[in-house]
Amino acid sequence: MPPFDVPEGDPFDVPEGHPFGPHNLPYGVFSPAGSDARTVGVRLGDHVLDAAAAAHALGSPYAALLAHSTLNPLLAAGRTAWSDLRRALTAWLTVPSHRETIAPHFHALSGVRLHLPFEVADYVDFYASENHARNVGRIFRPDSPDPLTPNWKHLPIGYHGRSGTVVVSGTEVVRPSGQRKAPAEPAPVFGPSVRLDIEAEVGFVVGVPSEMGRPVGLRDYRDHVFGLCLLNDWSARDLQAWEYVPLGPFLGKSFATSVSAWITPLEALDEARVAPPERTHPLLPYLDDSGPDVDLGGYDLRISVAINGQVISEPPFSTMYWTAAQQLAHMTVNGASLRTGDLYGSGTVSGAEAGERGSLLELTWNGRDVLDLPDGKRTFLEDGDEVTLTGWAPGPGGTRVELGEVRGRVRARD
Amino acid sequence: MPPFDVPEGDPFDVPEGHPFGPHNLPYGVFSPAGSDARTVGVRLGDHVLDAAAAAHALGSPYAALLAHSTLNPLLAAGRTAWSDLRRALTAWLTVPSHRETIAPHFHALSGVRLHLPFEVADYVDFYASENHARNVGRIFRPDSPDPLTPNWKHLPIGYHGRSGTVVVSGTEVVRPSGQRKAPAEPAPVFGPSVRLDIEAEVGFVVGVPSEMGRPVGLRDYRDHVFGLCLLNDWSARDLQAWEYVPLGPFLGKSFATSVSAWITPLEALDEARVAPPERTHPLLPYLDDSGPDVDLGGYDLRISVAINGQVISEPPFSTMYWTAAQQLAHMTVNGASLRTGDLYGSGTVSGAEAGERGSLLELTWNGRDVLDLPDGKRTFLEDGDEVTLTGWAPGPGGTRVELGEVRGRVRARD
Repeated sequence: MPPFDVPEGDPFDVPEGHPFGPHNLPYGVFSPAGSDARTVGVRLGDHVLDAAAAAHALGSPYAALLAHSTLNPLLAAGRTAWSDLRRALTAWLTVPSHRETIAPHFHALSGVRLHLPFEVADYVDFYASENHARNVGRIFRPDSPDPLTPNWKHLPIGYHGRSGTVVVSGTEVVRPSGQRKAPAEPAPVFGPSVRLDIEAEVGFVVGVPSEMGRPVGLRDYRDHVFGLCLLNDWSARDLQAWEYVPLGPFLGKSFATSVSAWITPLEALDEARVAPPERTHPLLPYLDDSGPDVDLGGYDLRISVAINGQVISEPPFSTMYWTAAQQLAHMTVNGASLRTGDLYGSGTVSGAEAGERGSLLELTWNGRDVLDLPDGKRTFLEDGDEVTLTGWAPGPGGTRVELGEVRGRVRARD
Repeated sequence: MPPFDVPEGDPFDVPEGHPFGPHNLPYGVFSPAGSDARTVGVRLGDHVLDAAAAAHALGSPYAALLAHSTLNPLLAAGRTAWSDLRRALTAWLTVPSHRETIAPHFHALSGVRLHLPFEVADYVDFYASENHARNVGRIFRPDSPDPLTPNWKHLPIGYHGRSGTVVVSGTEVVRPSGQRKAPAEPAPVFGPSVRLDIEAEVGFVVGVPSEMGRPVGLRDYRDHVFGLCLLNDWSARDLQAWEYVPLGPFLGKSFATSVSAWITPLEALDEARVAPPERTHPLLPYLDDSGPDVDLGGYDLRISVAINGQVISEPPFSTMYWTAAQQLAHMTVNGASLRTGDLYGSGTVSGAEAGERGSLLELTWNGRDVLDLPDGKRTFLEDGDEVTLTGWAPGPGGTRVELGEVRGRVRARD
């Protein structure tokens, strides 16, 4: 991201093409400097608009929807409200006659505290990148004729994660301890994970709930999903390897999942919509996304993964085999209901190239190879390492829509 | 449970030895006849005391803690408050001088509506019965030399389930649809599950939260867990079999999990505490429950499973290899935090005998055998079947502590 020089004094003076310009407008929850109160904010350039206060000052009917300490009421309000509010915000921020009224409700981004922007209901994580799944298969089942499990091309594989440990960008992550056992060892040992990893993902935030027993169709995706964010699904590979047969990942994942402080509305990504990769297997009707061109959750998003400021990978989200709409349809096809605040992760985003892999597991081929960083060699994460995910998509007129970053530093347990 | 004949008019006239006598006192949330308001109730015999109203009438300091539409504030209040309130309730219900004051706040159980008693935060399900795990291993891996996976005796295997579809007893369960594929078939087919099953379990309700990065020790179990309930972890075996490799159960479980309307405080189970089965493998220190006799979550609970009123099994909870305290310690040993309202299931309770198995999968050996019910033969559940779990534990002086039942009828999708 280029170093834009926005004077703290004039929030409206956002340089043409700023990736957080008026074409973006992600939502978050912040506390102004010196306050513990939480309020809904909208990011413009390097400022945050106190959206509830601005709406109130302008006499907007949306003031009540915004006057909360989480985004959940806005998420629940539904697609028409999301669109109308976005149109209103765009007008407030771009029509000069509003400037005087809303100017007092801006805060410099550098001075506010950002919070987890919504109350997470259920958290589900998918496994939707074919490149990632093939890499994992090759690493852990090198003798298998097919690195993909037999179900992989028929359904988006997913599992439930721990919603209580979803944390906002900037939260430190304590290195997890647990059991691990190498195949040759007679018994497990206990201690801090020695293979702590990241997974670069995109997270989707459900706004409108659904009823139990009533599946949500693929083409109803935009009526339920409000927006997306970057997501780091921290993973302790050694804990996971020992525990995961037969019921899946548990302690290897449940210690922390980091998300952006900013939720980007899907409407900001209209220019970024792309068709998913060609389907190599016939899909059952509820997953069949061929046909008319609607937004089914494929986006031309580019993620960048950095350790201590050094970029190590640039995973392309456009390569994901399963889309966000297919994941939503699959997650509910058994009749499971959605709640406002449900979060689902795409699974690790990995491209076809070595420099596009979204986990250290793949980047170092499970520790066989070494990453050379300016501050030393890495296979997995060391204490003190700070991981940052950034991401952007094409916006209107050659702009970029930048996603909120996800930062997290690894801390040793006390 | 014997048919006690309690006159609706006198809630205090509970026959000696009634399994919901003053030694039990489970908590729930109910709406009185003709009202939609939700209020915290305590069950005595076949009546419900509006606990908040009673506390208010008596000028109790606990009135504010009870004046909510869920048990969550009470759950969060902690062990001292739980004990003090229980002592107070016992006095209100047994000391004659309080009768006149609280009598107006009773409702006949038959006239109230019972609700999900707490807001479920995260839901985790374990796999802690050795008999169950061995049966599953024998059914699905008949050629394996050991029916248990190598990790089974070293850690309580668990996974996260869907908290948004935890429902209260009495809620109908819509038969889930999804993909299934028999090994010999070339591709999956889609349709209603043809192997819909139950899992008879005990659910543990977390009251006091914990901090991220700070594990909860085995011996702090009673400081965090408020109480327990019966739990039916409905399972679609055909969906589960096709989806679960490599990330565990997802749609095969996520459509519904039923819990009792009544949460039994652990204090009501003091007479039921039993040591777990002998440990056959050394345990890592954080799971080692040898030593001084404290409550570590082993209870002499007997569950009864009925289909359409016909008892098909009586699983004994005392046979569980992993205890609730070990599960709590394991779930947090990686630094994952607890929240008020976290629910964790024991996993299917199965005894050593054929008539003690907690799932149809085991009772019919995956459909090989047939159950003869008065209304026909069963391998798995049919539409219209009503499953009821009941359960009891020994109480003081030869009494029984009855748990709240879990009922659910299977309905075909519209």
